[in-house]
Amino acid sequence: MADRILTSAEVPAYVAARPALRDLIDPGTLTVTEVGDGNLNLVFVCADATGRRLVLKQALPYVRLVGPEWPMTEQRAVREAAALEVHGALSEHVCKLVDFDPEAYVLALEDLSDHEVFRTRLNAGGAHEGVPERLAEYLADVAFGTSIASLTEAEFRGRAAAAINPELCEITEDLVFTEPFLGAERNSVRPALDTLVAELRADPAWQAAAMAMKRSFLSTQETLLHGDLHTGSVFVRGSAHDGDLSVRAFDPEFACYGPIGFDLGMLWANLLFAGARAAALGESARAEALFGTLDTSWDTFTQRLRGHWPKRRASERYPDAYLDGWLTAIRADAFGFAGCEAARRTVGLAKVSDLETLDDARYAVVGTAMLRLSRTLLVDRATLTPQRVAEAAAGELRAAERAPR
Amino acid sequence: MADRILTSAEVPAYVAARPALRDLIDPGTLTVTEVGDGNLNLVFVCADATGRRLVLKQALPYVRLVGPEWPMTEQRAVREAAALEVHGALSEHVCKLVDFDPEAYVLALEDLSDHEVFRTRLNAGGAHEGVPERLAEYLADVAFGTSIASLTEAEFRGRAAAAINPELCEITEDLVFTEPFLGAERNSVRPALDTLVAELRADPAWQAAAMAMKRSFLSTQETLLHGDLHTGSVFVRGSAHDGDLSVRAFDPEFACYGPIGFDLGMLWANLLFAGARAAALGESARAEALFGTLDTSWDTFTQRLRGHWPKRRASERYPDAYLDGWLTAIRADAFGFAGCEAARRTVGLAKVSDLETLDDARYAVVGTAMLRLSRTLLVDRATLTPQRVAEAAAGELRAAERAPR
Repeated sequence: MADRILTSAEVPAYVAARPALRDLIDPGTLTVTEVGDGNLNLVFVCADATGRRLVLKQALPYVRLVGPEWPMTEQRAVREAAALEVHGALSEHVCKLVDFDPEAYVLALEDLSDHEVFRTRLNAGGAHEGVPERLAEYLADVAFGTSIASLTEAEFRGRAAAAINPELCEITEDLVFTEPFLGAERNSVRPALDTLVAELRADPAWQAAAMAMKRSFLSTQETLLHGDLHTGSVFVRGSAHDGDLSVRAFDPEFACYGPIGFDLGMLWANLLFAGARAAALGESARAEALFGTLDTSWDTFTQRLRGHWPKRRASERYPDAYLDGWLTAIRADAFGFAGCEAARRTVGLAKVSDLETLDDARYAVVGTAMLRLSRTLLVDRATLTPQRVAEAAAGELRAAERAPR
Repeated sequence: MADRILTSAEVPAYVAARPALRDLIDPGTLTVTEVGDGNLNLVFVCADATGRRLVLKQALPYVRLVGPEWPMTEQRAVREAAALEVHGALSEHVCKLVDFDPEAYVLALEDLSDHEVFRTRLNAGGAHEGVPERLAEYLADVAFGTSIASLTEAEFRGRAAAAINPELCEITEDLVFTEPFLGAERNSVRPALDTLVAELRADPAWQAAAMAMKRSFLSTQETLLHGDLHTGSVFVRGSAHDGDLSVRAFDPEFACYGPIGFDLGMLWANLLFAGARAAALGESARAEALFGTLDTSWDTFTQRLRGHWPKRRASERYPDAYLDGWLTAIRADAFGFAGCEAARRTVGLAKVSDLETLDDARYAVVGTAMLRLSRTLLVDRATLTPQRVAEAAAGELRAAERAPR
């Protein structure tokens, strides 16, 4: 239980009482705005008279969206702070943690008010160039820095065990893996997808592949995952074109040790949603470019990990053939996890605005294409390539466009 | 640090002071024999005047074989006690834990003096029938009972994290995975194998496959493993023929959550050593029967797990196709781990008497065959079957017999 739940009026006194904060921002001239629009937490943007800014994020002991009748551990703030610290030491593409108060479960974070949420930009037709690749660098840096490639085995096992986050992981297990595939009361789709959802529910190969990915998520501990790396968990500012692109992953409260391909697969599925939305809106070149980011981000990921490879532990001079096999396994995993995300964001409880804000005709096209793509990504994950996924996405969209309604 | 290290003379007073023990055996008439012939611990066999018997096993803070200059955590006794308790509740084929003293790191165990070590029996040409199958039942019961098939996800994650055993696992990582394949001072073979060991050291595909199994061992948490299930970790008494066969796995101090295929693979490699030894000694029918135990034990394992399957958690009605895929993955893992064990017991620090007690000519045949089999098991693990492994074992032995020396 948090010592207390902050209000905007209490924030200046809170800042004044934290040595790590009161020198960074002036509690005496603070203006505070509560902006939490997520489902779980309070978020206060603080600015002082000299223009210095800071964000405070407090985990509540329940789901904010629902209220105290859905309790949820504030320990997620401990996991988020730990992930931000570890990831921030390995990559610049992570929101910076300034301070953590483990008694009130308050994180102090760099202010990113001049950034926008990547999904918001994508939905508005904004530039994506460079963002998937920066995120791939982040994931490769973390994959190397938190795995047995660079840690001793005993340290790795200790870190993985210390990072367990069972309550938050259970949400992922239910919402990403179980419910979309095996059925749940809280699933929903518009009528145009009813037939395809019934097909999913009667397709053991599709379901079994999803459950195999669930087993992988539950039983594989390779790296400290972000755990929820969709395009709504990324802040962006500027563009690669102007050379001032800034990319910051945030909100890693689902962080745990898990399979490397998980974050990559979540990201890929959300990029596929953005591309499918663009295609349905008639922006075919933009759709193609977005589908192409699976290839460019995978290329960035592999190059980055290969770049780290010579720094691997001296006692473990694994042959290069090992790295090739590892990358192949990571990619197959990532396709499988992308297949889970493609389905769950269409039929499960937590949907994406890319799809949900479309009119019924476009919803039918994008929803159908993403569900069919889910099956391909899952069942064929061991043999796919990013290019083949891009072709499959375009093909499913064309087929869904032509389908009688 | 243990409170004290027991001597035989101190055991009666120790038993008298433990409420869980003094009613089971009479401290006043106790005869105590120290029989520890393992590398790590003290083992006292206790008998009272009425013939009641009990075994006390105390973990020392160092490797007994080497002395205090090789320190080793006594926490292994905690892990062993926890594994015996969990496994014993799921299977009868486990040495029974009577009491555990976490302050002195003393386990009280059922006396199995009327049993013999399975490897000892095998080396003497004794009956193996039924033993691999009983062990396969044990592994299937544990695989079901300690995995997400029967535990809630949050409980599974909590149990896996609580079971970490990094110091003992590091021994496995070094001795089973790293050193035999990447080289180490403490490796050794007789001259007949020098050429083949040089081939291993120059074979990236063989090495990379072994390192992929190491990654799997480090990063997969599926079930509470025994962790060291070779034929020297199994007590047997009687025979399947007489209907009085008793099989008891013991010494699970390497227990940790790991991939289900690990224990099965360790066991299989040791059965292959027993079969190869029999072949080299001219007992061809016995060799064939021992090679055939991979198939019969795999069949038992799958039937047993399929038998548990309808009892899986009601909330998780995974399709049967999932079980098929899971079994296929377990089998491929088991072959890969068997390939590691086949090599490490030939070239690594900890060898097996099956091979080491052979004369030079037979050593060359068995060592060559087991090393070549290691490569097949590792590189082809995804496509092998138990029958094909049995054929490969027989084929490698014939080839090694014919080779000029």
